[in-house]
Amino acid sequence: MDLEAIAEISRLKYRYARALDTKSWPEFADTLLPEATATYAEHLRFDSRDAFVSFLQDTLGPHVITEHHCGHPEIDVHGDTATGIWYLSDTVVVPGDQMMMRGAAFYQDRYAKDAAGRWKIAHTTYERTYESVYSLADMPSFRLTSNRWALIGSPQYGVPGVAP
Amino acid sequence: MDLEAIAEISRLKYRYARALDTKSWPEFADTLLPEATATYAEHLRFDSRDAFVSFLQDTLGPHVITEHHCGHPEIDVHGDTATGIWYLSDTVVVPGDQMMMRGAAFYQDRYAKDAAGRWKIAHTTYERTYESVYSLADMPSFRLTSNRWALIGSPQYGVPGVAP
Amino acid sequence: MDLEAIAEISRLKYRYARALDTKSWPEFADTLLPEATATYAEHLRFDSRDAFVSFLQDTLGPHVITEHHCGHPEIDVHGDTATGIWYLSDTVVVPGDQMMMRGAAFYQDRYAKDAAGRWKIAHTTYERTYESVYSLADMPSFRLTSNRWALIGSPQYGVPGVAP
Repeated sequence: MDLEAIAEISRLKYRYARALDTKSWPEFADTLLPEATATYAEHLRFDSRDAFVSFLQDTLGPHVITEHHCGHPEIDVHGDTATGIWYLSDTVVVPGDQMMMRGAAFYQDRYAKDAAGRWKIAHTTYERTYESVYSLADMPSFRLTSNRWALIGSPQYGVPGVAP
Repeated sequence: MDLEAIAEISRLKYRYARALDTKSWPEFADTLLPEATATYAEHLRFDSRDAFVSFLQDTLGPHVITEHHCGHPEIDVHGDTATGIWYLSDTVVVPGDQMMMRGAAFYQDRYAKDAAGRWKIAHTTYERTYESVYSLADMPSFRLTSNRWALIGSPQYGVPGVAP
Repeated sequence: MDLEAIAEISRLKYRYARALDTKSWPEFADTLLPEATATYAEHLRFDSRDAFVSFLQDTLGPHVITEHHCGHPEIDVHGDTATGIWYLSDTVVVPGDQMMMRGAAFYQDRYAKDAAGRWKIAHTTYERTYESVYSLADMPSFRLTSNRWALIGSPQYGVPGVAP
């Protein structure tokens, strides 16, 4: 096994998830090749990095908390390309809609080196084992005791996640 | 540390969990030595791969969604055998019974190479830190928006997880 | 990448979480330098290993179930020191108070080798993406079917987690 390449690709995936869940869109975009494609369901297909990032940036604003944990890497390296299976466990909370989502899926990614020799995501897709949603109205005691984006839009603070 | 062996054993465990949670029983069986043993509680002991796989296959049919995330590998390699501690986070949903289970445990595995020199599971057991169950009747809004096995048993589709 | 050092530091973190969640305080303390510091919020700062361990030991007694899963390691090694980012997913159950907590955070750790050349935690802190709490009173069917510490304090058993 090419342990060095596997370690580099794993870090790429971790940076991808961290940037996604902290809404750090330039850092997120940097994990993808410009021509990267992504498929999440029949109606969610993206033919370029820009289309994919724009969609996520528009959809996952500060009103949405996302949590994507990726584990169980099964990465095969073939020279300058590689494939990876990952086990996703994800949670989404939309406080304003009282919506909670929990699910799991297996990612099937392809990776390739860019011109500078750095590993990037060339294609990402996943197949869910399950996805569940419920309303926080069923749990009247539920409250967020911390929310990195809670202060966005409040008049006195301009910087997300920074307390006074 | 024998990083190559640790990487191989980790992939073995990931394949084990993926095959378990996708109900891919032949692939699951292939992660175990024929003489593998498994112990989950005082009354759940298996003396062979076949007994273990048969039990899981009978118990975890398409009416059950399972999610086993294994992390925190602490693997020690001693020549052709090895031991591993893993931190399990598991969720089980039985939609028909409105049952939800969530828990955590520490696995204590033993591994050995088979005749072909490939790492296999020789013994697996875990000790729970906790396990909790609740009824989905407490969450009337709960619904599955995706279920890999939802179509099984419906007359028009024969293949699990494949939409029309 | 220094894969050997990264593997050693990862195991250190896994031992830290396992000792924390099994309340094995001497083993937990052994993952920290004596002068280690920890910061969890403005009002939770610890200036030494002893202060940190004492606080946790006092706070996280057998009445509290904790579950700390650390994934997505982004570890940079610089000779005898290192930094690490980890993605935490944590759950806390306090059965006596009917309290449940679920959240996520990014750790930012510093590591250093001790006099014996073994990696230890020099500093740990995290920033939450979110934290949520709710009362189990909202889920009247909820029950613990396993609890490693359930027998503590019951007159006939002296040893935690050991069934009769």
